[in-house]
Amino acid sequence: MTTKNIVFIATSLDGYIADKEGGLDWLHSIPNPDNNDMGYGALIKRVDAIVMGRNTFETVCSFGIDWPYTIPVFVLSTTLKSIPEKYIKQVQLVNGSLTEVLNKIHNMGFNNLYIDGGTTIQSFLKEDLIDEMILTTIPVLLGGGAHLFTNIPKELEFEHVKSELFLNHIVQNHYKRKR
Amino acid sequence: MTTKNIVFIATSLDGYIADKEGGLDWLHSIPNPDNNDMGYGALIKRVDAIVMGRNTFETVCSFGIDWPYTIPVFVLSTTLKSIPEKYIKQVQLVNGSLTEVLNKIHNMGFNNLYIDGGTTIQSFLKEDLIDEMILTTIPVLLGGGAHLFTNIPKELEFEHVKSELFLNHIVQNHYKRKR
Repeated sequence: MTTKNIVFIATSLDGYIADKEGGLDWLHSIPNPDNNDMGYGALIKRVDAIVMGRNTFETVCSFGIDWPYTIPVFVLSTTLKSIPEKYIKQVQLVNGSLTEVLNKIHNMGFNNLYIDGGTTIQSFLKEDLIDEMILTTIPVLLGGGAHLFTNIPKELEFEHVKSELFLNHIVQNHYKRKR
Repeated sequence: MTTKNIVFIATSLDGYIADKEGGLDWLHSIPNPDNNDMGYGALIKRVDAIVMGRNTFETVCSFGIDWPYTIPVFVLSTTLKSIPEKYIKQVQLVNGSLTEVLNKIHNMGFNNLYIDGGTTIQSFLKEDLIDEMILTTIPVLLGGGAHLFTNIPKELEFEHVKSELFLNHIVQNHYKRKR
């Protein structure tokens, strides 16, 4: 069975996923009157489940909106002891090494995974476990914040799959790991 | 007289301009049998002179090749006392505030400038003096090294001008400052 781990995330031109104050307003700096989803719907159709870190999970919870995901979500955390009751049907807590976590998720029949959240993406990259990256670049220099990419032990080569331009100003590049 | 400061530089997917050892080999990780210049020649036709930092100047000198630039080069440095005799016809040392430096260069009739070198680009961005950025992305995660972008005091919005794909894998995005 082929498995795949896919990153789908937006960064600023200078590679940040959150600004100096942890804010995300800059994600909406380009007007999007028709609510173009910039490939998000197509991505969700391609994956079976989402793996995210505790930070991302808590950020989504904090939005105060209905649970936005239509597919199962696995939250990677060593500190979280349980998932709040209201999310218990949609969300499962997982921990252990990434290999153990992936084995568990694959054994449940979820093979194509959307890997989300800066720390989680980093952990996967450190172990060379990312197969595809769909990176959306918002044309702003934030000048500081949380970097998407930080240190990884070895160089990882990727191949360009395609590029798309959204809303006249937002470039989205799709890469796959060269193996 | 309109003046323009243009960045034209390649980074890794994770935004580095040199790898962990300061190396640049990764710039050539995609085969380029026909020596595609990826827009460099077109850039040089658009500019009147090059402004670079001491690091970049010394790196170019260290290549042991003939002087590669056909237009005047200004080297920004507070530590360098003079330009080596062999480059004296092509290279001028400049220092002072960027405003002073730019005034001097503009007064000599050079209005469209190619701004090169990580530290120099940073200095210009910190003072919001960059008008265009042509960023070429090599599809490799280096996992560490020298970042092109570091801290700047305020957010700077850019507009997308165009994207080009070179050698099937190298995306080049052209942005201009939104003013």
